[in-house]
Amino acid sequence: MPLDSPITLPAWAALNDLAARMQGPEHHLRRLLEAPGRLEAFSVAGGGLFYDYSRQRVIPAVMDALFDLASQRDLVGSFRRMVSGEIVNTTEGRAALHTAARRLDQTPVRVSGRDVMPEIRAVREQIREFATAVHAGRITGSTGKPFRDIVVVGIGGSYLGAAFAAHALAEDARPGMRLHFLANVDIHNFGRVVAAIDPEATLWVVISKSYTTTETMANALQAEHFMRAKGLDPARHTVTVTAKGSPGDDPARPVLAAFHMFDFIGGRYSVTSAVGGVPLSLYLGYERFEALLMGAAEMDQHAAEAPAEENLPLLAALLTVWNTNFLGYPAMGIIPYAEPLARLPAHVQQLNMESNGKSVDLEGRFLAVSTGPIIFGEPGTCAQHSFFQLAHQGRPFPIEFIGVVQPRYSMQDKARHKDVTNHQELWANLVAQSRALAVGKPEGTPERRFEGNRPSSTLLMEDLGAINVGRLLSFYEARTVFEAFVWGINPFDQFGVELGKTMAAGLRRALADQNAGRPLPDDLDPIARFYLRTLAGGRWDQI
Amino acid sequence: MPLDSPITLPAWAALNDLAARMQGPEHHLRRLLEAPGRLEAFSVAGGGLFYDYSRQRVIPAVMDALFDLASQRDLVGSFRRMVSGEIVNTTEGRAALHTAARRLDQTPVRVSGRDVMPEIRAVREQIREFATAVHAGRITGSTGKPFRDIVVVGIGGSYLGAAFAAHALAEDARPGMRLHFLANVDIHNFGRVVAAIDPEATLWVVISKSYTTTETMANALQAEHFMRAKGLDPARHTVTVTAKGSPGDDPARPVLAAFHMFDFIGGRYSVTSAVGGVPLSLYLGYERFEALLMGAAEMDQHAAEAPAEENLPLLAALLTVWNTNFLGYPAMGIIPYAEPLARLPAHVQQLNMESNGKSVDLEGRFLAVSTGPIIFGEPGTCAQHSFFQLAHQGRPFPIEFIGVVQPRYSMQDKARHKDVTNHQELWANLVAQSRALAVGKPEGTPERRFEGNRPSSTLLMEDLGAINVGRLLSFYEARTVFEAFVWGINPFDQFGVELGKTMAAGLRRALADQNAGRPLPDDLDPIARFYLRTLAGGRWDQI
Repeated sequence: MPLDSPITLPAWAALNDLAARMQGPEHHLRRLLEAPGRLEAFSVAGGGLFYDYSRQRVIPAVMDALFDLASQRDLVGSFRRMVSGEIVNTTEGRAALHTAARRLDQTPVRVSGRDVMPEIRAVREQIREFATAVHAGRITGSTGKPFRDIVVVGIGGSYLGAAFAAHALAEDARPGMRLHFLANVDIHNFGRVVAAIDPEATLWVVISKSYTTTETMANALQAEHFMRAKGLDPARHTVTVTAKGSPGDDPARPVLAAFHMFDFIGGRYSVTSAVGGVPLSLYLGYERFEALLMGAAEMDQHAAEAPAEENLPLLAALLTVWNTNFLGYPAMGIIPYAEPLARLPAHVQQLNMESNGKSVDLEGRFLAVSTGPIIFGEPGTCAQHSFFQLAHQGRPFPIEFIGVVQPRYSMQDKARHKDVTNHQELWANLVAQSRALAVGKPEGTPERRFEGNRPSSTLLMEDLGAINVGRLLSFYEARTVFEAFVWGINPFDQFGVELGKTMAAGLRRALADQNAGRPLPDDLDPIARFYLRTLAGGRWDQI
Repeated sequence: MPLDSPITLPAWAALNDLAARMQGPEHHLRRLLEAPGRLEAFSVAGGGLFYDYSRQRVIPAVMDALFDLASQRDLVGSFRRMVSGEIVNTTEGRAALHTAARRLDQTPVRVSGRDVMPEIRAVREQIREFATAVHAGRITGSTGKPFRDIVVVGIGGSYLGAAFAAHALAEDARPGMRLHFLANVDIHNFGRVVAAIDPEATLWVVISKSYTTTETMANALQAEHFMRAKGLDPARHTVTVTAKGSPGDDPARPVLAAFHMFDFIGGRYSVTSAVGGVPLSLYLGYERFEALLMGAAEMDQHAAEAPAEENLPLLAALLTVWNTNFLGYPAMGIIPYAEPLARLPAHVQQLNMESNGKSVDLEGRFLAVSTGPIIFGEPGTCAQHSFFQLAHQGRPFPIEFIGVVQPRYSMQDKARHKDVTNHQELWANLVAQSRALAVGKPEGTPERRFEGNRPSSTLLMEDLGAINVGRLLSFYEARTVFEAFVWGINPFDQFGVELGKTMAAGLRRALADQNAGRPLPDDLDPIARFYLRTLAGGRWDQI
């Protein structure tokens, strides 16, 4: 059955009419918030989190139409088909089973008839045993020193999720263990990492599904040279996380261990696979990683089972569609009021923008509507002293606030500035900002007036433990795919990164020619020629 | 003479017509780039940097109209008036003399008749002497240990510029010296900083012009309690950077030193004042800080003297206006192909979005046109594996690429993946991305097609030394104010942050009441009441 374009759905037309109605002054958020029971009507708890969308520019009729859209698109059904192993990544002919990576029950998950859970469990068990042996000092570097520095060599989906989670859970790190990320091919990334490590105590975790990712291979090569220069045996300081049978899984190139990735888990959805599992288990211990899996699995189940009205990631996805396609906002801010969640915006930026920054639907038609917004953010309260001027008085954009009820540090509560703890001060700001954005302030001299009517949601988590970090990761994954299901796009491919790669390969060959003393190719475009000459020592003021 | 609204200027109407023309297929960037001499015509060197806008969606007629706009707005004249000490921050009745902070010549700069340079030079000399004494071990903590950990306590403009520059120049850090930032009122920020420092060897640098900034005062109080608990004398472990006569400059509260800030330098423009000077001189040595000043001064002079056609920050500002107001892009990406510049997007995000996220012009009129775009970014090539899918095939937005000709690390050049060095690989990608975005690829199956016509600029710097970091900082400052001059807005005030602060103060008082066992105020809005109860241990599923 061919997929309809979203604009042909009855709910889409209804939402267009509602969006026009919402422009009226009676639907300004200042007015909407005067209604009794606003919070009760527009908030929901589930999957271990709490989601408050009372300051979104919605009324019951809008939510009803959005739920109609969810039903006309069969969003929950689509999610279940994804979870059950259907080939939902149609352009690449693959399933999308990141949810299987965190299943801790015994239910089989079949891809084309074959249960994939035994191999998933086997990898998890391999991670547990390996991490335990490293922590016990049974596996050491080639000079016998226990591993203390873990360097993740990987880019994009091979590190952003783990980098987020590791930063979020830094207090849970095993004593003395340090985690570093070597993602960028920029040699400064390598130079700074090697300046910070003890080479004899360093384990390099090279992560690439194909084991051909240029940046990762270039950095792995640097690492290998570095180890040899230090008199260390690379085979005893390296593990790989890669697809079965890739060049990183070749017995001819021995490593301490090779952990398998599967073609049914995409990079940006892979933090609960070995991609996150190996670094996080080494850094935090396997048990913390499993707690993270547990939280993610709980949210997966919620996403697959809760009715639309109570389904957090589905609600959040519908609000993205409402804000993007009907109210016309081009961007969304993610503002965690929690320093440990500082790298969440960068992770979600990748997860969501790489998944939903598409122009073609599953039928190969160019879409008549815009898709994923630009996503950016910094932690609050810092963001208030940075770009919130623009949020309040410049170009409006929706914001997703995140609050944490219980901080990890409370012994500091004796030192109270203005009779409140730092954590209370943080919350006073969290709560104040969403209200200030919504209601504004129509009085005062022009430069002191606030238009208001700026939408936001607030997501609450009980604490910053691994379970909640897992719930949060799964919330954003599920929300991303729900959005894609509405638009009818494939959130699992990324053909948009290919053209730049192909062109870079051409320039790389030209540079290799230049290195070998051969002339630059005649068909090189003149702008590229200028940059390559400048890099080779040419002066930019003599173009 | 009252300021005209920009839309009434002749150039504005001409640009509107040109924008319509640029929509035609003959003005697709793929076609524009076929013109011989495109790079030569649309690039310029100056102020020590190189700026290539050949892949912006412009033709000579567009540039001519933009230069007319520059002339009709007297942009260079406005910049000179700012530099000369005129009261350009009219809502607050202040000059905007961040450029004076880096003047190394003997020219007087007068504000209301008074030369401010002697006091600027005195602060610089005080920084030099203090940093030298710390490095020589003549100034130590209360137990006699030399200072090794510098903790900057400050938020927004009081840390983002220094955090960017310190990260950019980390290789130049004095051996053993470590710099930490305590910006967020979130107690996790404090908890993690104190876990990373040696208390006896720690110098706290508390930065706040008014010395009343809530986050900074709350964190300074935490620091004071922490020092006392460790048996240290806060007076011997603290310096302040603050306005003369503020509570941080009170002899009754002794500190090792108080460095003055001036009302004519705004927070987000303050990295070349004591705000950046104290932390950077302690971390890198005063000489590096002065090199940074030298680079900034060079770019200031360029901005004040170069004709529009050769003026880098002015050109960049005109292109922001063109992209924002005429081509309709709501956001801009800043993508430095250099890991050390990783915090540049966050710094420029504050600098530009807080300056130009405004809706009211200098005459107090609501603007008929949009102002500053959303600014975000991550380093390349990492960004390619994150949100570049959306850049290529989703929602288009202009990008500013930044390239560095000479890397700091070259001994790694022996390890060549595919016959190129890591730095060459980085450049192959830098050069390829801007071309891929511009020309696209019209062939292939729908999901493999690229529309192209996505604009970008490329800014080059020779290396990552302090002089170039100074040039870069000044480039973005000058560009920001040039943009504001076009729109006729005040880039130096930030009334948009006030409403949230006022509301947070109300909630803070409610929380203090709750702490003291008093009931929450009756007039508290129900949503705030829910959050305050949840924070106090209430259950979110029982609202």
